[in-house]
Amino acid sequence: MSFIHKDFLLHSDAARELFHEHAEKLPIIDYHCHIIPKQVAEDYKFRSITEVWLGGDHYKWRAMRANGVDEHFITGGASDWEKFQKWAETIPYTMRNPLHHWTHLELKTAFGIDKILKPETAKEIYDQCNEMLQQPGFTARGFMKHYHVESICTTDDPVDTLEYHKIVEKDASFGIKMLPAWRPDKAMAVNDAESYNAYVDKLAEVADVPIYSYDSLLLALKKRHDYFASNGCNVADHGVSKFPWTECSKKEAERLFERVRSGKTLSDEEVDKLQTALLLDFARMNAEKGWVQQFHFGPLRNTNSRMFKELGPDTGFDTISEYQAGNQLAKFLDTLASEGSLTKTILYNINPSENEAIAAMIGNFQDGKIPGKMQFGSGWWFNDNIDGMLAQMNALSRQGLLSRFVGMLTDSRSFLSYPRHEYFRRILCEMLGSDIEKGLLPASEFDQIAQMVEGISYYNAKKYFQK
Amino acid sequence: MSFIHKDFLLHSDAARELFHEHAEKLPIIDYHCHIIPKQVAEDYKFRSITEVWLGGDHYKWRAMRANGVDEHFITGGASDWEKFQKWAETIPYTMRNPLHHWTHLELKTAFGIDKILKPETAKEIYDQCNEMLQQPGFTARGFMKHYHVESICTTDDPVDTLEYHKIVEKDASFGIKMLPAWRPDKAMAVNDAESYNAYVDKLAEVADVPIYSYDSLLLALKKRHDYFASNGCNVADHGVSKFPWTECSKKEAERLFERVRSGKTLSDEEVDKLQTALLLDFARMNAEKGWVQQFHFGPLRNTNSRMFKELGPDTGFDTISEYQAGNQLAKFLDTLASEGSLTKTILYNINPSENEAIAAMIGNFQDGKIPGKMQFGSGWWFNDNIDGMLAQMNALSRQGLLSRFVGMLTDSRSFLSYPRHEYFRRILCEMLGSDIEKGLLPASEFDQIAQMVEGISYYNAKKYFQK
Amino acid sequence: MSFIHKDFLLHSDAARELFHEHAEKLPIIDYHCHIIPKQVAEDYKFRSITEVWLGGDHYKWRAMRANGVDEHFITGGASDWEKFQKWAETIPYTMRNPLHHWTHLELKTAFGIDKILKPETAKEIYDQCNEMLQQPGFTARGFMKHYHVESICTTDDPVDTLEYHKIVEKDASFGIKMLPAWRPDKAMAVNDAESYNAYVDKLAEVADVPIYSYDSLLLALKKRHDYFASNGCNVADHGVSKFPWTECSKKEAERLFERVRSGKTLSDEEVDKLQTALLLDFARMNAEKGWVQQFHFGPLRNTNSRMFKELGPDTGFDTISEYQAGNQLAKFLDTLASEGSLTKTILYNINPSENEAIAAMIGNFQDGKIPGKMQFGSGWWFNDNIDGMLAQMNALSRQGLLSRFVGMLTDSRSFLSYPRHEYFRRILCEMLGSDIEKGLLPASEFDQIAQMVEGISYYNAKKYFQK
Repeated sequence: MSFIHKDFLLHSDAARELFHEHAEKLPIIDYHCHIIPKQVAEDYKFRSITEVWLGGDHYKWRAMRANGVDEHFITGGASDWEKFQKWAETIPYTMRNPLHHWTHLELKTAFGIDKILKPETAKEIYDQCNEMLQQPGFTARGFMKHYHVESICTTDDPVDTLEYHKIVEKDASFGIKMLPAWRPDKAMAVNDAESYNAYVDKLAEVADVPIYSYDSLLLALKKRHDYFASNGCNVADHGVSKFPWTECSKKEAERLFERVRSGKTLSDEEVDKLQTALLLDFARMNAEKGWVQQFHFGPLRNTNSRMFKELGPDTGFDTISEYQAGNQLAKFLDTLASEGSLTKTILYNINPSENEAIAAMIGNFQDGKIPGKMQFGSGWWFNDNIDGMLAQMNALSRQGLLSRFVGMLTDSRSFLSYPRHEYFRRILCEMLGSDIEKGLLPASEFDQIAQMVEGISYYNAKKYFQK
Repeated sequence: MSFIHKDFLLHSDAARELFHEHAEKLPIIDYHCHIIPKQVAEDYKFRSITEVWLGGDHYKWRAMRANGVDEHFITGGASDWEKFQKWAETIPYTMRNPLHHWTHLELKTAFGIDKILKPETAKEIYDQCNEMLQQPGFTARGFMKHYHVESICTTDDPVDTLEYHKIVEKDASFGIKMLPAWRPDKAMAVNDAESYNAYVDKLAEVADVPIYSYDSLLLALKKRHDYFASNGCNVADHGVSKFPWTECSKKEAERLFERVRSGKTLSDEEVDKLQTALLLDFARMNAEKGWVQQFHFGPLRNTNSRMFKELGPDTGFDTISEYQAGNQLAKFLDTLASEGSLTKTILYNINPSENEAIAAMIGNFQDGKIPGKMQFGSGWWFNDNIDGMLAQMNALSRQGLLSRFVGMLTDSRSFLSYPRHEYFRRILCEMLGSDIEKGLLPASEFDQIAQMVEGISYYNAKKYFQK
Repeated sequence: MSFIHKDFLLHSDAARELFHEHAEKLPIIDYHCHIIPKQVAEDYKFRSITEVWLGGDHYKWRAMRANGVDEHFITGGASDWEKFQKWAETIPYTMRNPLHHWTHLELKTAFGIDKILKPETAKEIYDQCNEMLQQPGFTARGFMKHYHVESICTTDDPVDTLEYHKIVEKDASFGIKMLPAWRPDKAMAVNDAESYNAYVDKLAEVADVPIYSYDSLLLALKKRHDYFASNGCNVADHGVSKFPWTECSKKEAERLFERVRSGKTLSDEEVDKLQTALLLDFARMNAEKGWVQQFHFGPLRNTNSRMFKELGPDTGFDTISEYQAGNQLAKFLDTLASEGSLTKTILYNINPSENEAIAAMIGNFQDGKIPGKMQFGSGWWFNDNIDGMLAQMNALSRQGLLSRFVGMLTDSRSFLSYPRHEYFRRILCEMLGSDIEKGLLPASEFDQIAQMVEGISYYNAKKYFQK
């Protein structure tokens, strides 16, 4: 039997029925990803499996470094084949790491390859993948169709022109929606006055609004927010390391903003204050339009300063911070709820020891208007693996309503990451099937459980994101 | 087969034997609950299943809000039937949440109803329950007898008259002990001078002790402590959000108390100081009488200020705080142990990521005089579910002696919550039965394991609480 | 069937094959322990099983105290038999605690005793063990040979003469390597000026270097570091409660050191500063020689001050602190990595809620030169149990490469603790065998999985520690 087979991860009849009859064939709504819009617009064709797999995947880079592979073969000047070879040498050592499953799921579902990747099979697999990548259908759009993607939300800066989204939108032949998502993190990065001001100048230009005050910043952002909306955006995303929470009056926000604009460096406390004001105002904008807003919080970034200097950000040197955001988060959400401007919200924590607190947190702000209005987000980044997904779903089950969960997303920049939805659905079905077998869920209510599976796989997201 | 059946949760022969032969028939000592004493004294009769289930159960309210149910049908003016109907609509979405098991356990064990609650069965179940609730035996006392309750400890403020406890005590026909438990949280709430002074005035009146100083406060409390003792109380309970720990001299406690009494607002640090002094002195009172003291710590309360204004406290807007109490707790316990005034103590944390630290903590203050003197309390509140109970018992097993554990309590204000003892015992027996099957526990020592089950189900609490 | 049997903990064919064909017979490299070198040098003969088991084992002491055993029978004046009897009375109550498995594993593997220890069997077991302990082969060296130990690293202070290591090294007949490990914790204990200065004076004398400045302290330590190296040491170990991290210039370190040397007490912040400087310099020394350095961090020590006064340190009153070291650790490691002086490093956390953060942390400093250069250390102390080991290995699997893990150590001062390697290997094989059975690992790659088992059991440590 091949490693990735029909019933991979499914150990009970109930699990198999739930997956094959209810989850497997549903389309994919990938409501948060880092796909490069240009690649979709241009229906990008890949040079090699190395480009697809190792071109920007810092998960794989970390594994290779841990395996003693020299940077030359990771981000350096080695050839595509050399890099692939080093990855193939690493793969046998990744057993039990999610990369091992992902790799073989991708080989199987994208290329129909059943072989285990290892030094002995590397050349054959490399050649076969590369050959197929030259065929029609093995392009950016091809993969999206192949994986039955219905819509995706990319991750975009307020200054983005959204030109590629427009191209795709106008192309009736494609049939898959690619929508922008609003990610104004740079508009909050007030800790570095120099780069912040460069960004604000750019924003002023794009929005055609001179930015000389806190209010004019908001005005410029608001114009771009409207622009995003008019291009189909209804999802925002905010990445924060620590959840800012130091109360900050309007007056103070103005004063601090002007300090930054004049090139001054704020103290840590001032940064926290100004970011609190900004994040609240960003959330208010989202609420005005009834968007979904997502908060990804907690990572400690660029921990290795030598490598940061060499390779820049997002190269595999970010990690799980031990800051616990919960208590600040409670105040942030309360402020918004009190004034009636808390929109649909998804919370993603990076440290799984916070799972229970975050799963409980959402319950405090469910308002009885929208089922599952407040969401505990799917296992993110370091938690995007079987244990992590189960931990998230178990915490949500204990503290809230799993049935209302909007489910999985790839968070990926790769067109080969879509089988992670399949992976997630298998895990979900196995979890519920096992519960049925153990009598923890009533077998008599199979239809309801099947509906839960379909909801979490697809329909909940469709409704929640109005896709 | 019905959902809740004879062997619900029991998957091995060993588990079934442990439960049916050793746990099932033992009486219940519910050593911490929020039952309203008046309802026991008057043998309260319930208007409807809605009153029983939805009258004050903020667990259910949270689930309904998360399911998009309007507040009108939760805490608002809707009729009993309308509220029940909304709960029946919510139940199918609660699968995997403990409410789903609790609901069906209660239907089965209290009313003999095997049906799954859902919109289709709602009317039938509603009518049948309501009809039965009008029959003799379906009253407050009736349920207590039905569930084989032997004794309970309520939760009472020092100013309480305990009049209902006296009525029950004098009624020889009832045969179940209802004892008070001492909960002086209001005597520690020095953060709000106005309500604190109103409370202290009331305490002065009830105790007939003018309270003009820290010492006279203690004197008044001591009189009430004696009064509680003379009414059969030997259990104290203390609820704290953060475990206070800022050293505070006697002189400073006096000064700070006088500031509060004169209506001044203390700073956060002063509050922490005065509370440290108070909690130590409360613990000393408990030690003088050899009582059991319980500490429930860690929740973040009233996180949603809009709903707090509308509905007040304990309405479903409390959550798991991320403060970690352990290190403060160590100093608190050490201070008491050093002076020989650390009595039998049970520690309940709200954040399960603290489990291991708390399970280890108790080991530092076991004094070799009383087996299991220091206890790691059963899965509390957000942890009162299968995973939470297992997590607590596993941490206790790893770090201490599970065999000495005093077991489960309901922490509930409902007369239908007693089957949670059955639920707990099933989980316990399944856990141990599975260990036997896997050879983790020696099958040859079955008698010892059965004794452990009986101890944790009943005898350990009986001895520990001297009931 | 006896409790500890051939297939104890092994529930699948794959697990059994992995253990019996690949793990079982490999030698032991116990790269971190607290064995007393003198006992090896003199081939120590034990007075009784009480001496072996209860002479210094604070795990057992804690269990006895929790079971209500008076200190007289634990650390007090009771006879060997009385103490053993109390331990035998406690054992039935330790079921599910690792002590229960350890005890029976040790009885079985060291003495061939299959009986369960309990009051009824106590005398027989006591007599049999004591009789065997008088036979040749049941000595310090005898046990090491019996358990197929290949090499051990003890834990030694810089002032240690290493005389016993030399004796063992010169004794060609023994065949087992006993190497020192460098543990300069006392050279960092600047919080207590008096004892620190006494220690520094001793160091100055042993190193024959007058210590009047920070630089001369380093010089003296460097001489001892060289001396340790010349005696076969290539492993350092550092124990810290909180990971120090307050930046400290060279100048400031000098000034603070001089303050301590002049008998002044440093503030908490000054202590943290000076310790930051010291720990960095210690790490630089380790890097210069290419040693492996270990960091054991997080315990809260001597929490019970009354018992500390009576019994001193390491007597069972240490616990799991709730400080989370990760973020400080990131800065510490980054400082070293930036200057190219981060040597092979193993990180051991005491609080398992930190597992995920630490497992991720090592990934930030893998440098692609040495496979598994940065290690997440095996379940330590309160985590040295089945759940704790699995939690550590699962976190490592998710976040890094389990295949590169250097595996288990005893951390013990007992010559009977070696079967914990067997225990660990069984758990490892069961975990991987179960994965194969569930299709989580490809059965076709059994050879690779077997190689992983052999690596983690032995070969990875052999290579990593160059033993």
